[in-house]
Amino acid sequence: MAGNSFGQIFKISTYGESHGVALGVTIDGCPAGLSIDEAFIQSELDRRKPGQSAIVTQRKEGDHFEILSGVFEGKSTGTPISIMIRNKDQKSKDYSHIADKFRPSHADFTYKAKYGNRDYRGGGRSSARETVARVAAGAIAKTLLKESGITINAFVNQVGNIKLVTPDNQLDFSKIEDNIIRCPEEKTANAMIDLIKDIKKQGETIGGAIRCVIKNCPAGLGEPVFDKLHADLGKAMLSINAVKGFEYGSGFAAISMKGSEHNDKFISEGEAIKTTTNFSGGIQGGISNGMDIYFNIAFKPVATIMRDQQSVDVDGNEATVTGKGRHDPCVVPRAVPIVEAMAALVLADHMLRDRSVRL
Amino acid sequence: MAGNSFGQIFKISTYGESHGVALGVTIDGCPAGLSIDEAFIQSELDRRKPGQSAIVTQRKEGDHFEILSGVFEGKSTGTPISIMIRNKDQKSKDYSHIADKFRPSHADFTYKAKYGNRDYRGGGRSSARETVARVAAGAIAKTLLKESGITINAFVNQVGNIKLVTPDNQLDFSKIEDNIIRCPEEKTANAMIDLIKDIKKQGETIGGAIRCVIKNCPAGLGEPVFDKLHADLGKAMLSINAVKGFEYGSGFAAISMKGSEHNDKFISEGEAIKTTTNFSGGIQGGISNGMDIYFNIAFKPVATIMRDQQSVDVDGNEATVTGKGRHDPCVVPRAVPIVEAMAALVLADHMLRDRSVRL
Amino acid sequence: MAGNSFGQIFKISTYGESHGVALGVTIDGCPAGLSIDEAFIQSELDRRKPGQSAIVTQRKEGDHFEILSGVFEGKSTGTPISIMIRNKDQKSKDYSHIADKFRPSHADFTYKAKYGNRDYRGGGRSSARETVARVAAGAIAKTLLKESGITINAFVNQVGNIKLVTPDNQLDFSKIEDNIIRCPEEKTANAMIDLIKDIKKQGETIGGAIRCVIKNCPAGLGEPVFDKLHADLGKAMLSINAVKGFEYGSGFAAISMKGSEHNDKFISEGEAIKTTTNFSGGIQGGISNGMDIYFNIAFKPVATIMRDQQSVDVDGNEATVTGKGRHDPCVVPRAVPIVEAMAALVLADHMLRDRSVRL
Amino acid sequence: MAGNSFGQIFKISTYGESHGVALGVTIDGCPAGLSIDEAFIQSELDRRKPGQSAIVTQRKEGDHFEILSGVFEGKSTGTPISIMIRNKDQKSKDYSHIADKFRPSHADFTYKAKYGNRDYRGGGRSSARETVARVAAGAIAKTLLKESGITINAFVNQVGNIKLVTPDNQLDFSKIEDNIIRCPEEKTANAMIDLIKDIKKQGETIGGAIRCVIKNCPAGLGEPVFDKLHADLGKAMLSINAVKGFEYGSGFAAISMKGSEHNDKFISEGEAIKTTTNFSGGIQGGISNGMDIYFNIAFKPVATIMRDQQSVDVDGNEATVTGKGRHDPCVVPRAVPIVEAMAALVLADHMLRDRSVRL
Repeated sequence: MAGNSFGQIFKISTYGESHGVALGVTIDGCPAGLSIDEAFIQSELDRRKPGQSAIVTQRKEGDHFEILSGVFEGKSTGTPISIMIRNKDQKSKDYSHIADKFRPSHADFTYKAKYGNRDYRGGGRSSARETVARVAAGAIAKTLLKESGITINAFVNQVGNIKLVTPDNQLDFSKIEDNIIRCPEEKTANAMIDLIKDIKKQGETIGGAIRCVIKNCPAGLGEPVFDKLHADLGKAMLSINAVKGFEYGSGFAAISMKGSEHNDKFISEGEAIKTTTNFSGGIQGGISNGMDIYFNIAFKPVATIMRDQQSVDVDGNEATVTGKGRHDPCVVPRAVPIVEAMAALVLADHMLRDRSVRL
Repeated sequence: MAGNSFGQIFKISTYGESHGVALGVTIDGCPAGLSIDEAFIQSELDRRKPGQSAIVTQRKEGDHFEILSGVFEGKSTGTPISIMIRNKDQKSKDYSHIADKFRPSHADFTYKAKYGNRDYRGGGRSSARETVARVAAGAIAKTLLKESGITINAFVNQVGNIKLVTPDNQLDFSKIEDNIIRCPEEKTANAMIDLIKDIKKQGETIGGAIRCVIKNCPAGLGEPVFDKLHADLGKAMLSINAVKGFEYGSGFAAISMKGSEHNDKFISEGEAIKTTTNFSGGIQGGISNGMDIYFNIAFKPVATIMRDQQSVDVDGNEATVTGKGRHDPCVVPRAVPIVEAMAALVLADHMLRDRSVRL
Repeated sequence: MAGNSFGQIFKISTYGESHGVALGVTIDGCPAGLSIDEAFIQSELDRRKPGQSAIVTQRKEGDHFEILSGVFEGKSTGTPISIMIRNKDQKSKDYSHIADKFRPSHADFTYKAKYGNRDYRGGGRSSARETVARVAAGAIAKTLLKESGITINAFVNQVGNIKLVTPDNQLDFSKIEDNIIRCPEEKTANAMIDLIKDIKKQGETIGGAIRCVIKNCPAGLGEPVFDKLHADLGKAMLSINAVKGFEYGSGFAAISMKGSEHNDKFISEGEAIKTTTNFSGGIQGGISNGMDIYFNIAFKPVATIMRDQQSVDVDGNEATVTGKGRHDPCVVPRAVPIVEAMAALVLADHMLRDRSVRL
Repeated sequence: MAGNSFGQIFKISTYGESHGVALGVTIDGCPAGLSIDEAFIQSELDRRKPGQSAIVTQRKEGDHFEILSGVFEGKSTGTPISIMIRNKDQKSKDYSHIADKFRPSHADFTYKAKYGNRDYRGGGRSSARETVARVAAGAIAKTLLKESGITINAFVNQVGNIKLVTPDNQLDFSKIEDNIIRCPEEKTANAMIDLIKDIKKQGETIGGAIRCVIKNCPAGLGEPVFDKLHADLGKAMLSINAVKGFEYGSGFAAISMKGSEHNDKFISEGEAIKTTTNFSGGIQGGISNGMDIYFNIAFKPVATIMRDQQSVDVDGNEATVTGKGRHDPCVVPRAVPIVEAMAALVLADHMLRDRSVRL
C-alpha cells in the first residue's frame, strides 16, 4: 500500500519523477469559494526552485505550473484542484554511468530492493524534486489558512556549527527573504553563506537546521490520541528529503528539565487564557492551545558530493561513484518553503478536521 | 475527524479513559493463523503497569485483559481482535477539586477548548493510561514480527543529565529488564534510579530519553513519499504522551556533519549488501536498507508535581492547583514498552503494506 | 487489508463472532456534547434481537449492552464511544457436526478459502449476529441526526410474492412497529406473517424486501464522484447479510422509462426549490436535493433450512448437512432496524463530511 | 471531506471537469514491474469516447492521453502512475444560457446547493466526461488482472423494454464489440439500435441496463463485514453517472425464492470445489467462491432531452430549459467500458487487499 497521499480532509496526492514527463499534485478537499492567486503559487515555487542563488544547485528549471481543474472564475469550486509542473528537457541527459550503481546514502539501493526496478534518472521519485508538488499544494493551504489569520514562517537557524541564537520574539521574520540563506539575522546569515561557499569549494556538503513558527493558530486543533497536532507535524517534516530529526517546544532540552521549570503557567489576558512560558510549543495533549507553535528540524548533509566514493553495483561488485552534476551544497535554503508548505498542509487539514467535533 | 486509529493494514482503533469503565483496542488486519500467546500479552502489560517499582507511580492497577474476539483455538482468525482492559474501582475517587481548574502543561485546557466539555477524572482520555491499549496491540504486532525474526529493543538512555554513552553494539539488551529504570548498563542505571528517587523526594519530576534499536528488519519497508518508514516511526513516537522530540540515525548531530563524513559506504558481505557505517539509521529514502534501525525519543518531565502551582479555572479566574495523588516522577521506565509497542505496530503495518508492491 | 470499519468521519469499527466472548463497536468521530439515551439504544437492539416474535428465530439473547467509554455525565465527550454486547453461554453448544462441512450458500467455504481456518461456531464472524454492533452504533447516529430533524423509516414491503403497493405518502409509518413483520399496512402485514408461518412449517425459508424512506435530509449531502450519497447507501445496504440488490428512486424501473417521463421538474415552494415528481429518489448527481430519499433492498432466503442437503466437507468429500437449530424463516422483520442503522450511519457521516466544503 | 478517490491499495484519485483544461487520474498502488500497453489504454478510451457511432453523442473528442509518471522503460515502477487527458477547445462554447438555470434531473441544483458556486460549462465535474479518467485507470487494473487470468465482460442486456434473455453461458462475449450497442446477440442488438434511433428522432432519451460477468476470479477476495466484494462492486457501479440500481447473483428475483431453490449445492470437481447452481453470483458472505461473478446495473434515461422543459433559475424564478447540444439518447453503449473499468478497479484492489490475510 503506497504512500503518496497526505492529509485526511485537505488531502493531497502527488506524482512525478525527477526526469519524468511532469510532476504534480491533486488536492481533494479544498473548500469551495477560495480565491486562488496564481502569482502567489508561482512565488512559492520560485522560493524552492533550483538556480535561484549562488549557494544552491545551478540547475535551471523554471517550475512553471498549470492548474488543470478545480478552479473556475478564479475560485476553488470544491472539486479536485490539480496542478501540474512539466519537466523541461527531461530526456536530454545520460544517466547510464549511474544506472547500475548504488550511490552512498541515496535511495538507489532501497528503491531497487523494494520495487525491483528503478528510474535511475536523477533519482526518479526519490529526488527532492518531488517536493515541488508539495510547495504548490502548500500555497493553496496557506491561502486557506490566511482566511483565519494563521501565519507560518520557517527560517534557517543552523548550518554546520553556525547557529542563530536570538529568541523568536526578537527576530523580524520579514527579513527572512532578505538573504539567500533565509536566516532573519544578517550577520548570522552571512556567516552561513560563507560557510556554504567554502563547503562547495571543497566539493563537500553540509547539514543544517530549520525552525518554523506558526502564529495565530486557534486553540483546539489536533486529534488525539494518534493524530496529535505535533505528531502530524512531525510526520510531515520527517517525510521531507534529508530530514533526520524533529522537536517541538522544549524538544530534546526537556530531557534535563524539572517539572517545575517546564510547566507553563496559565494566566488570563482579557478574554483569553494564555501561558507565561511556552515550553509546550503551543500544543498540549496533542491539541493547540493558542500560543505560538514552533519546532526545529534537522537536515543531513546532501549525499551527492563532488568526490569519488567507493560503493557497489547492483550485482554487489565494487564500483566507484564519481561526483558530478549540479547539486546543492546545503539543502536548507531551498527547504524553507517546503517546511512551510508541509506545515500549512497539516494545519489546513486539522482546521477542517476540527469542524466535526461540534454538534 | 477524530484520530484514534493507527496503521493502514495492521490497523488499530483504541478507546477508553483513565477512569472510565474500560480501555481497549481492536486490531483489524492481523493475518489469520498467528498463534496468540496470552501470557506474553500480560507480560507486556506488566512492564507498563503502575506500581511495579519504587520509582514509578504507586497506583495499583492489575491491567488484566480479556480477548473479546478474533482468536479461536489459540490462533488469530483474520477477523478483528478486540482486547479489553477493565478499569478497577473507577468511580471511587473525588475529582471535584480539579474539575474546574486547568492544571499547568496538562491537556485540561486544550481538551476543554476543543470538545467543550471534558472528562476530568484522572485526565480522561488524555491520560497516559490510554497507552495500555497500545501495549496490548503491540504485543500482537511483536508476535507477528517474530515470525520474520525482527526484534525491537527500547531502553532508557538518559534521565536528566545522566546519559548512557556506550555504543549500541557494546550493550547487552538482555540486561534491559534487570533493573527498574530499564537501562542495560548497571552503573548508569543506578545513577538514574538515584536521581529519580531524589527528584521524587523534592516533589518534582524530571525528563528523560529512550533509545530504540530494531534488528533484522528486511530491506524494502517504507512507503515514500509521505509514509516513509522513519516518518511513520516518528509520528508513532510523537503520539506517545510527553514526547517532545524524535531523531533517527545521525539525528540532530547531522546538522554539523559533512557529506563525506555522513555518507554510509556500501559493501558486499556474502550475498548481502551492507554499509560500513550507519548514520542513515537503517533507512534511506524512507525505506529500510537492512541495517539496524535506531532512534531516540525525548520525554518532558511529568506535568503533575507535588507542589502548589498558580493557574486559572474555566472562567479565567486565578486558581491554585495543589499537587496530590500518586504520579510518576519520571515517565521513561514505564514508557519503554510503549515505545516498543508503537515501533512494532509501525513495522507490522509496513511489512503488510510492502506486500502489494510486487506483481 | 481488512474491512471491519465503516464511515470516514463518523467512523465505526466492529468486532465479534456469533459465539465468541462479545461483539461490539467503537465509534470514533461522534461530535462532543450529544446526549446519549441508553434506553433508546436498548430499544433499537430489542427490535433486532432474536426471539422477539413467532416468525423469527427462537434463540434467546438478551443483547444487553455496556458503554465502555466516550460518554461522561450522559453526554458524548468527543472521544471514542465503545459499546460492548457480551454473548451469553457462548461455549455451551456442540458444533462439531458442522466443523468440517460447508453448508450450502453460507460463508463456510469462502471463509475457509480466505482465512485458512474458521470459527465454525454459529458462523463465527459471518453470522448476522455481527449486525448487533451496527444497530448499537446506528442508535447513536440516529440520535445525532435527530438534532437536524432527519428521520429514517424502514419497513418490509415484500415477502415472497406478497407486496406492499401503497405509495409511501399514503402510508402511516407510525404503524410499522404495530405488527411483527414491520409492514405499515395491516392487511398486507397479516398476509406476510401467514406466509412466513407456512414457510416455517415446511422447514423452508423465503426471501423478502425492505424499503427505506429518509425525510428532512437537507440538500447538499454526498461527495461525488465516488462517494455519491446513493453509492454509499448502496454499499451500506449491500454489506448487510443476505442482501442481493439495491435500487434508489426509480431504480430498475428506470430502464424502460423515457427522459421526459423520468425528469423531475423543479418548482419554487416559498423559499425552497422542490421537484414535482421524485424519480431521482432525493439524490441528483450523488448529492441530496432536499426531497425524500428512498430505496429498496432485496434479501435472499435464509440459507439454513430444516432439511438435509447434499454438500462437501473440507476435503472435498460428499457430506450431508442436516438442518437443525433455531433460525429465521425470513430475515426481513429483524433486518428493518439494521437497514435503518446503516442508513443513519451513512447520513451521519455525510452530514459531517459536508462541513468541510465551505470556507 | 471530498470523495474523488477510490480503492484502498490499488487507489485512484481523479480530477477534471467537462470543459476544464484536462481530466486525469493518479493511480497510487499499482505493483512495480507491470508492462504498460499504451495502445490498450487508448483502445479502452476509444470504446468510451463520444462520436464513435450513430447512436451516441456526436461530439468529437479524441481523448488522447499522456502518461505523466510512474512508467519507466515500459513498466510500472511502483510509484504513482498519472494519466492526463487534455480537453480540446474547452473555452469555445457559450454556456451563458444555462449558467443560472437548473436543468431537470441534472446535478445543477445540488452542486449549487453544496458548493455555493458551480462550473456550469457542460456540467463541470458532474458530467459523465469525468469517467474518462476511470476508464484510463481501469485499463491499468485490467492489465494487472490479466496476469491472474481474470476476465471482465460487460454488455448491454436491456434498452427500454427490449431485453436480452439468453443465459450467459450461451452467449459469445467475443461478439460484444461487433455492434454499436455492445450486445452479444445480433438480433437483440439490432432491435435495441432501432429503438434508440427512434428515441433520438423523438428528441427523447431512454434507460437501459448492463450486465457484467467476471470469470476466473479466485476464491477468497472480499473483506467482510463492510467491504464485502459485492458491496464494493455495488458502490463502484452506483458511483457511475445515471445508475439507479445494482443487483448481483439472484438479485431482486431472490425476494420470491425459497431457501431450497436458492441454495447453491457444493460439489467436488477434481481438486476444485464448485457449486451446481450459482444464485450466489460467485460471492458468499462477501467473499468470492471461484464461480462466475455477475451483476446487473440499471441506468436511467439521460436527463438532457431535445425539448423545452419548465424549471427554475437560481433565484427560484420560473425558467425554460431548452434542449440543445449533442447528447447521448441512451447511455448504455458507452457505459459498457466504464462498468468494466470500475469492476476491474474493485477486483485489482481486492486482489491486493487479500494479500495481507496470510502470515
